[in-house]
Amino acid sequence: MKASLGFVDEENMSMLTDLYELTMCASYFDNKRFEPATFDLFIRRLPPNRSYFLFAGLEQVLLFLEKMRFTEEHIKFLKSQGFKEEFLEYLRNFKFSGDVWAVPEGTVVFPNEPLIRVTAPIIEAQLIETFILNTINLQTTIATKASRVVYAAQGRSVIEFGLRREHGTDAGMKVARASYIAGCHGTSNVLAGMMYSIPIFGTMAHSFVMFFDNEIESFRAFAKTFPDKSTLLIDTFDNIKGAENAITVAKELEKMGFRLRGVRIDSGDLVEISRKVRKMLDDNGLGYVQIFASGDLDEYKIRELLSKGAKIDAFGVGTRMGTSADRPYVDIIYKLCEKMNEKGEFEPIMKLSERKATLPGRKQVFRFMDERGNFSKDVIALEGENIDGEALLIKVMEKGKIVYDMPSLEDIRKNALNNLSRLPEKYKRLRGASKYPVKLSPKLKRLIKDLREKLKS
Amino acid sequence: MKASLGFVDEENMSMLTDLYELTMCASYFDNKRFEPATFDLFIRRLPPNRSYFLFAGLEQVLLFLEKMRFTEEHIKFLKSQGFKEEFLEYLRNFKFSGDVWAVPEGTVVFPNEPLIRVTAPIIEAQLIETFILNTINLQTTIATKASRVVYAAQGRSVIEFGLRREHGTDAGMKVARASYIAGCHGTSNVLAGMMYSIPIFGTMAHSFVMFFDNEIESFRAFAKTFPDKSTLLIDTFDNIKGAENAITVAKELEKMGFRLRGVRIDSGDLVEISRKVRKMLDDNGLGYVQIFASGDLDEYKIRELLSKGAKIDAFGVGTRMGTSADRPYVDIIYKLCEKMNEKGEFEPIMKLSERKATLPGRKQVFRFMDERGNFSKDVIALEGENIDGEALLIKVMEKGKIVYDMPSLEDIRKNALNNLSRLPEKYKRLRGASKYPVKLSPKLKRLIKDLREKLKS
Repeated sequence: MKASLGFVDEENMSMLTDLYELTMCASYFDNKRFEPATFDLFIRRLPPNRSYFLFAGLEQVLLFLEKMRFTEEHIKFLKSQGFKEEFLEYLRNFKFSGDVWAVPEGTVVFPNEPLIRVTAPIIEAQLIETFILNTINLQTTIATKASRVVYAAQGRSVIEFGLRREHGTDAGMKVARASYIAGCHGTSNVLAGMMYSIPIFGTMAHSFVMFFDNEIESFRAFAKTFPDKSTLLIDTFDNIKGAENAITVAKELEKMGFRLRGVRIDSGDLVEISRKVRKMLDDNGLGYVQIFASGDLDEYKIRELLSKGAKIDAFGVGTRMGTSADRPYVDIIYKLCEKMNEKGEFEPIMKLSERKATLPGRKQVFRFMDERGNFSKDVIALEGENIDGEALLIKVMEKGKIVYDMPSLEDIRKNALNNLSRLPEKYKRLRGASKYPVKLSPKLKRLIKDLREKLKS
Repeated sequence: MKASLGFVDEENMSMLTDLYELTMCASYFDNKRFEPATFDLFIRRLPPNRSYFLFAGLEQVLLFLEKMRFTEEHIKFLKSQGFKEEFLEYLRNFKFSGDVWAVPEGTVVFPNEPLIRVTAPIIEAQLIETFILNTINLQTTIATKASRVVYAAQGRSVIEFGLRREHGTDAGMKVARASYIAGCHGTSNVLAGMMYSIPIFGTMAHSFVMFFDNEIESFRAFAKTFPDKSTLLIDTFDNIKGAENAITVAKELEKMGFRLRGVRIDSGDLVEISRKVRKMLDDNGLGYVQIFASGDLDEYKIRELLSKGAKIDAFGVGTRMGTSADRPYVDIIYKLCEKMNEKGEFEPIMKLSERKATLPGRKQVFRFMDERGNFSKDVIALEGENIDGEALLIKVMEKGKIVYDMPSLEDIRKNALNNLSRLPEKYKRLRGASKYPVKLSPKLKRLIKDLREKLKS
């Protein structure tokens, strides 16, 4: 085996799947089972310290569905794994031809609500499972976490800084995207800036300061290159002396008609240091110089800093947000909810087990608002039920073609911020938030009761 | 901005970097600073419940270093971000030309030990930082976690099953690779099987069982397609009834000259159910049918199951291993440790701060064994010191070319298993392991003392 960078690309993404998807599909094929079925993608439950999810990742799912193909290289490998020629021939011609309904990206959602609903011949509906879960799990986990960080920052800027500790190259890109959707102001990730037009930010590292003979020389060197946009890292030796040096350089910049953008503090007691540094800057007429803080931050730490009176204008948040360190996944699943029977009718299906029950049938989610337009409750209902609220699932794909005017990243971000602003405070508390009411419609409840009785007998 | 799958590939990987790497490099360039410097990549400290690290990811780092380039598209984007033409011209011709020493993949390592040591002109040494950290962090985090899971399984097979909840596409590939290095027997990830020749495994999902009119029909359909390698999922309705159906199908297979490979239990009390199912299988002369367990497993859960007498032959371990859920990162950093001075001599550099001090100078790590060949202690020393132990860092790249006969994945895995077997038990306990002794050489200690005094004055 040759050494490999092991990147996943458009050509090989169809093979980024669990083997069981292919074995099940081979068996469906072998048993001539091609009936359509519907699967729901949903999240089973709220993790500790989460009270909602911010849905993200749909764009990549739809592009995947439209473009996934099997190449001769794939077929050859699958043949070596014992798959039969007839099924391989089917894969050679594989194109996803199903219908997909989904909640728009940037929507606030809750456990058990269908987020993506796929109706397609069983083999197609099954074969796409792993990639969809992988995509939505990451972006929704991160968007949710990032929205909490942004919330804790109370209007101050949050920049996503975690590329070095995010899980590989694709996570680097998708974390930047999902964090931006959730309200971050930008990212340090240059490629995410290039590919997604996300604003990029960067300061300097300790090594830069240490490479010069002394701190002020390093500050001057940096300010020479970026006279109008330098943020100087002041904690390499001592934050206060670093601030003095930054003030000297800011004054030198002023003489040349430039303004120092900011100073960055990366260690120490951020409350005390930021207050001292703010005062030093203000006393020197440098009220415009921003204080940028970083170093092991997350929503809990930011809230603590601000509640203790830290004077910080912007936060660089890395590892803990970029890995969602306190809970690096959501309990996302993709479950069969109906299949076509011999009569050509769709028949609801449900899994009966205590902690893992599923909701049967083809469903829609309806959201109710209070008089101010804030979210007040959701109702999960059967499709076609006459319910007052706003339907969250919209048709995004028909017969394998995207029929959805895919919003720009900026529009997705606006939708997210709008959604978050309409979610009442009590559901957004970082700890101990209230439980948002999600009800089942009477018809759905009756169906569940009927199926439960039928299954038990 | 067009909708995008946002994949990182060989062409754009050079841009997967923090903006500050580029701003620092632009400033070095602007200030005509091109002197060589040395950086160490190391992990600052052990996370809770980790007592060692299993190093992984070097292959991808070396391929990155040899292949990274900047294209006209990159240059155009950087120009739009305000970078100056002279520096962009430098990037147009960029090729990494440095020397790299590293610990082989699959080596057990400890905090503060240099794992990769880069000596190159400062701009080159700086520009590569983010990608290296991103690559080593993920694979080392996962290899370490997976080695604990394999250890807990006490010789039973562990299959990596986490693709759906791993962080994006690249994590899917690299988690499969790192887990295999750490001793897992394979992965569910088909693409990892194709690209890395890792053995792939798969069973069936609940949806497959539910798609048929009843469980036994689904088992028969699956066994028809894979008569010699079916593992039947028996918990969709009831584990015991599922086992009865599996036994019926196993007997049917026997009549046709085939053997059922296994049954999978994915929920319920795995201890009690596995014991019951084992007895049922044995009572029916099906001692060869393996019991495969899955569902929210990790090293703690596996140890608990085995200590309570569960009868399980193999474990499918997903999310918690694939995200290293209890600690989804290591405190990995890349720090300047020496630079060339005006006289053309390398001069050691160190960062002085309480919790974030670094080790100065160009270093080597020496490992000592006891009389049985087991690891007894490590010594971090200055390069060239005459120390008895085995030197861990070897030269892998010279003037930008790989000079290392890169081992196959199988050989890396063997190295890992050999390393883990030579790490005494007391350092491998899942909780409360002893602290492995890592000492500093006398010369390194003296250098630190001298620099500390110099820096303080």
